[in-house]
Amino acid sequence: VPDTPLPDFVRHLRDILGEASVFTSADDLAPHLVEWRKIYRGHADLLVKPRNTAEVSAVMRMAHEAGILVTPQGGRTGLVGGTVPQGGIVLSLERLTSIRAIEPLSACVVAEAAVTLADLQAEAEKIGMLFPLSLASEGTCTIGGNLSTNAGGTAVLRYGNARDLCLGLEVVLADGTVLDGLHALRKDNSGYDLKQLFIGSEGTLGIITAAVLKLFARPRSVSTAFAGMATPAKAMDLFQSMRSQFGEALTTFELLPEFALDIVLRFQPSLRHPLGSNSRWYVLIEVSQSLGGDHLRSALEESLAAAIEHGAVEDATIAASDQQSAMLWRIREDLSDAQSIEGASIKHDVSVPLKHLATLIEKGSAACIAEMPGLRPCPFGHMGDGNLHFNLTQPVGMERQAFLDAWPRFNRIIHDLVIDMGGSIAAEHGVGLQKIHELARTKQPEALMLMRSLKAALDPKRILNPGKVLLGRS
Amino acid sequence: VPDTPLPDFVRHLRDILGEASVFTSADDLAPHLVEWRKIYRGHADLLVKPRNTAEVSAVMRMAHEAGILVTPQGGRTGLVGGTVPQGGIVLSLERLTSIRAIEPLSACVVAEAAVTLADLQAEAEKIGMLFPLSLASEGTCTIGGNLSTNAGGTAVLRYGNARDLCLGLEVVLADGTVLDGLHALRKDNSGYDLKQLFIGSEGTLGIITAAVLKLFARPRSVSTAFAGMATPAKAMDLFQSMRSQFGEALTTFELLPEFALDIVLRFQPSLRHPLGSNSRWYVLIEVSQSLGGDHLRSALEESLAAAIEHGAVEDATIAASDQQSAMLWRIREDLSDAQSIEGASIKHDVSVPLKHLATLIEKGSAACIAEMPGLRPCPFGHMGDGNLHFNLTQPVGMERQAFLDAWPRFNRIIHDLVIDMGGSIAAEHGVGLQKIHELARTKQPEALMLMRSLKAALDPKRILNPGKVLLGRS
Repeated sequence: VPDTPLPDFVRHLRDILGEASVFTSADDLAPHLVEWRKIYRGHADLLVKPRNTAEVSAVMRMAHEAGILVTPQGGRTGLVGGTVPQGGIVLSLERLTSIRAIEPLSACVVAEAAVTLADLQAEAEKIGMLFPLSLASEGTCTIGGNLSTNAGGTAVLRYGNARDLCLGLEVVLADGTVLDGLHALRKDNSGYDLKQLFIGSEGTLGIITAAVLKLFARPRSVSTAFAGMATPAKAMDLFQSMRSQFGEALTTFELLPEFALDIVLRFQPSLRHPLGSNSRWYVLIEVSQSLGGDHLRSALEESLAAAIEHGAVEDATIAASDQQSAMLWRIREDLSDAQSIEGASIKHDVSVPLKHLATLIEKGSAACIAEMPGLRPCPFGHMGDGNLHFNLTQPVGMERQAFLDAWPRFNRIIHDLVIDMGGSIAAEHGVGLQKIHELARTKQPEALMLMRSLKAALDPKRILNPGKVLLGRS
Repeated sequence: VPDTPLPDFVRHLRDILGEASVFTSADDLAPHLVEWRKIYRGHADLLVKPRNTAEVSAVMRMAHEAGILVTPQGGRTGLVGGTVPQGGIVLSLERLTSIRAIEPLSACVVAEAAVTLADLQAEAEKIGMLFPLSLASEGTCTIGGNLSTNAGGTAVLRYGNARDLCLGLEVVLADGTVLDGLHALRKDNSGYDLKQLFIGSEGTLGIITAAVLKLFARPRSVSTAFAGMATPAKAMDLFQSMRSQFGEALTTFELLPEFALDIVLRFQPSLRHPLGSNSRWYVLIEVSQSLGGDHLRSALEESLAAAIEHGAVEDATIAASDQQSAMLWRIREDLSDAQSIEGASIKHDVSVPLKHLATLIEKGSAACIAEMPGLRPCPFGHMGDGNLHFNLTQPVGMERQAFLDAWPRFNRIIHDLVIDMGGSIAAEHGVGLQKIHELARTKQPEALMLMRSLKAALDPKRILNPGKVLLGRS
């Protein structure tokens, strides 16, 4: 990046966007330089808050001309440092908060980048429909960030990732060109599907300013269950038989180790153990469908009773009310907080083909404990998607920082296992800053080469979200 | 493309692939130069039939070096001339017919490019699962072609397009590089989602040699219905209320005009009119779910009874047996053949947001009849996806060729309407040769520019599937 006459640049920006959209003071910049977990800290020269797509375009045109780095920011709830700037401009999309349209018949909504996920869910609900993406950070995270990271969550099994929920995008390219692809079409093969480039590329190929998202019929029958079993393999057996029986109605299938339930119950005394006795592993299950009636619930009861009879499941309960269902969900939702109370965690967000998942848990846990006796593995998450948050809680009494310093060693152990199984080291949280070296180490060279070609074609000056996803040319 | 010493090139190819894989005689080439409907005719210098991915790679490496054009071919069932060569090499993938793996637990199958869609469906059925893509040409079309055209069909409403069914791809790039992306992962954000580039780009960016495809639980309850109504708007009302009630279980919703039923019954005397009286419009409906029992069928009965009571539907029938269901499906499936018997057709494959679909039918039909009195509009197809095959049958007694000569005039009428409504002029059949000029005319310039950048990045010598999708630089 060349040295640029920054004061002139700022003056010019203010001429175009107005005084109230361009910030240079340390106080204004401070909250935009650090991510919420305070692991990564960056630096930047100025912060801009464009009010609309045309202003985003104007900023990019100027930045492109001058060769100034631009880091786009949405709700900044990411877990991999994807929004931490590396100099130049922070471009906050926070003022692009309109719902431009919502269409019950076409079953879609046109939302600007900074609409929060929770607001989008609420808009869908107002017209009696469902926007199914659901994440822990949904009150703060924004739809632009959800799409640029291809967010996952707890309903992927039924509805897919953020990519699967997107019909069209409006994107500002690195040189300021506005790509208007706000199509509300279920079928479109009129040329290359350009939106796919920007979903999941973490703002390194373009800036998503608005999106057309699919809406769904709301489910009228929903049942939640919690079951305990001896091993992850038994949990997987249950998953396979329930997927066959319930098909599209199997919405959630989340795995938790005994350790996870223990620390959640300690952290949150208002919660009770949902079963009569302990098991080594638990699953949280949700089935849902649009058709009303209690057929779904009866089928769930029969299915779990049969699993107990066959010895796959040790004990199980089905929520008898919305309140009971909420209590079961709390166990899963409070797990992140309970982990931070319990001690430092070294985290992995990995996926493998389902047939390898039980083995990954077994081998990964054994290898990590061998590396550091006393370490407490906490692999949990979206079993039905093959996606585990393979977290490692520090040994009791160990010094926090000493444990965290071992992060790269454990990454290597888990990631090497995952790669051997044909898995992904970045399943739903993205690459960001955090995994850029691990990605360079583990991704096929042909794929990295093609990624570089795309980056060169779309952002030849390499100004967009620098330092994320792809290492610089070296 | 430079002049090349073709005899040397052929000798070199034969050294590498063997005599039995390289063909130069006019007889061998002939069937590969014309598409099955005989509308487009191309030319080529040689035909190669590589036996595996390494051989596809070797051909591309040589072709790239020499700057020779390469047209990939699968089952050649396309409708837009996408496999018709424009000189150079025809690369037939017909020998890549292995199912490399099928995984019940991971719920996926790894199939090479030339596995036919019907064979893939059968493989899934053998392990008690479902591969849901379903098309008229499924006995001949191949999975490589299905993916490179992002095929649609009659179950998109529930399962999505071919793109949505693909977990991973193996692709040979223009320069022979093999991109091994045969991942069987439900969540993967480890870098850009490269497979998306090749799905739907009609072989212009790379050659798909194998794919990992999703399998689904088989439905245990399936019900088929046929209903008649006065207008497309009433059909859309029925769709909206059924989508709300059945949600994910609404699998098929196909619209037919009265004219379509008339000509099918004339063409196929073994079929009977499914209802007691004529309506102006009909829909074929299928609902399905994994859970067994007759709740779904009862709900369908109630839903149609209520629609008749409210006046949305004039008459309806629900198939009482698999055989009756097959008869209802035959009406839809025999429509293409019935149309060819009835006379020449000018065809469109368009999609619009659902809220515009009824208006498109009304305005499009009126405009076409105004343009040519006596013309018989036959807009039919995947109403639930907003995708119509807006076909126009020639006026009775008109000379066939005189009618077909009007093709561009009618294209313009329908496509302009569709573009005004934010629709697509190439919904599920692709662009190929047929729509390349209409695409250049109607697509946003920014999108065309980005498509060109991608083409330049992935196929800088422009040797892959020449003359398709994107016009040459001019």
